[in-house]
Amino acid sequence: MAVVMVGSMAFDTIHTPTASRERVLGGACVYASIACSYFDRTHIVGVVGDDFKDENLKVLKDHKIDIGGVKRMAGKSFFWEGRYNADMKTRDTIKTELNVFEQFDPVMPESFKYVPYLFLANIDPDLQLKVLNSMQKLKFSMVDTMNLWISIKKEKLTEVFSKVDCVVLNDEEIRLFTGKDNILQGAKEIQAIGPRYVIIKKGEHGAALAAPGSYFSLPSYPVDSVVDPTGAGDSFGGAFIGYLSKANKTDVTSLKKAVAYGNTVASFTVEDFSVDRLKNLTRRDIDKRMKKIKKMVRF
Amino acid sequence: MAVVMVGSMAFDTIHTPTASRERVLGGACVYASIACSYFDRTHIVGVVGDDFKDENLKVLKDHKIDIGGVKRMAGKSFFWEGRYNADMKTRDTIKTELNVFEQFDPVMPESFKYVPYLFLANIDPDLQLKVLNSMQKLKFSMVDTMNLWISIKKEKLTEVFSKVDCVVLNDEEIRLFTGKDNILQGAKEIQAIGPRYVIIKKGEHGAALAAPGSYFSLPSYPVDSVVDPTGAGDSFGGAFIGYLSKANKTDVTSLKKAVAYGNTVASFTVEDFSVDRLKNLTRRDIDKRMKKIKKMVRF
Repeated sequence: MAVVMVGSMAFDTIHTPTASRERVLGGACVYASIACSYFDRTHIVGVVGDDFKDENLKVLKDHKIDIGGVKRMAGKSFFWEGRYNADMKTRDTIKTELNVFEQFDPVMPESFKYVPYLFLANIDPDLQLKVLNSMQKLKFSMVDTMNLWISIKKEKLTEVFSKVDCVVLNDEEIRLFTGKDNILQGAKEIQAIGPRYVIIKKGEHGAALAAPGSYFSLPSYPVDSVVDPTGAGDSFGGAFIGYLSKANKTDVTSLKKAVAYGNTVASFTVEDFSVDRLKNLTRRDIDKRMKKIKKMVRF
Repeated sequence: MAVVMVGSMAFDTIHTPTASRERVLGGACVYASIACSYFDRTHIVGVVGDDFKDENLKVLKDHKIDIGGVKRMAGKSFFWEGRYNADMKTRDTIKTELNVFEQFDPVMPESFKYVPYLFLANIDPDLQLKVLNSMQKLKFSMVDTMNLWISIKKEKLTEVFSKVDCVVLNDEEIRLFTGKDNILQGAKEIQAIGPRYVIIKKGEHGAALAAPGSYFSLPSYPVDSVVDPTGAGDSFGGAFIGYLSKANKTDVTSLKKAVAYGNTVASFTVEDFSVDRLKNLTRRDIDKRMKKIKKMVRF
């Protein structure tokens, strides 16, 4: 099968306690699409400015990602600058410049509308809804979001949730959306809106999947050194849906395996800045680490 | 086989966002010994004041815990009062009264010295060392501690660590002890001191076991409602060593299973205040939930 994903393409300036990188490739859709590309055909919809050079697009092309839905506009690309604290988990945003992303209006190439797997990365829920409504042959759709949209567009976001198969949130977003401190109760409340599945991203603690009548939980792979956590969640989502698309299965057993693939790919992402580690993987590397994770939880 | 454990016996006053309990049974050794008792014979060493009534000791006797090493002194028992925040993870101590615990000098009944499994719950490292040195036939020893001792008696604590098989710490204690933000690196640094095994307690995120050449990690069981997190770590430790003692095995496969039992029993503990849930379990309840945890991580 194949996957369509819609989301940000950006430049990031990232500071960690030990190093910094200026204007490196970033954005949810970039991380997610590269992760997805190790599993299946990936079509992306996004917008970049005229500062987004051919060498930046080359990374995507090298992974055979279809950039037919990427619009280049006059102006600058979305830019984010952030600083990670000593714990390498919490971070402060120093600067967010929406630039061309402010006018982002996802226009789907006709052929994209018939792709069966859809990943709506974190963008304005109004745009997510627009994309969702344009899809003609969906078999499985999932949506990510952020605290901003939960705070200012909860009603629209709830409508999006009601129309997808799977919602991907981190534990804090679940608390913010539902007001429940208990994650399991929070996930159930979101499932009651419509989506059969809720994935709870827990950062260094891994991820969990709430499904009707079952709960799956997987710790993260313990990397020797976390260099840059940016994009971990996005590459989780990309690998997750890429695996499902390739298998063309959406039963709960497949979703569990997809979570494990998501964890695996995310653990590579954090080993270097930007997509530097993520872009240099092979499916063999991924399968090898995935086996280690399987062994790590066996008792 | 059998287990000896040494640690606090206390009264706790506990406040959560929704309820409070005054002067309920608490203390690391109380939680750990009840948890351990579901697996194997448990002998405890501790001190209580004359406010510790027969009805309090009855809970332990009901679980066939040998209280031959519990000294009753004139004065009040150790008392702790704390308040959990809305997240039910972080907490503030309102009051700590050491009372008779301040003069605690663990005196081991002669028969205890020949017991092969030892759990040193969180007490002064000088006392832990004294107990450790009095044991004659140890097969497996493990030690817990707290931030206080890491801060004020690190050298002595390091000596304790060098003499045991297993150190049990939470992630923050590992960071405090080693200065490493990466838990895996921190665990390796502790292993370099001597203990083959380091158990990392992660609260709601479960627990991990660092062993020579392998790493095991297990999420916690998702309870519907966390009523009182007090004693989760202590009952984890008690169940862990109780399982090992009963199996009389200390290989890494058994330790992994012991971690799973620790997670299981801890998940019951938090379902009610004090030992109210913990004390009313059966081995069948434990095995049943343990199977659910096994299924929860299977993919």
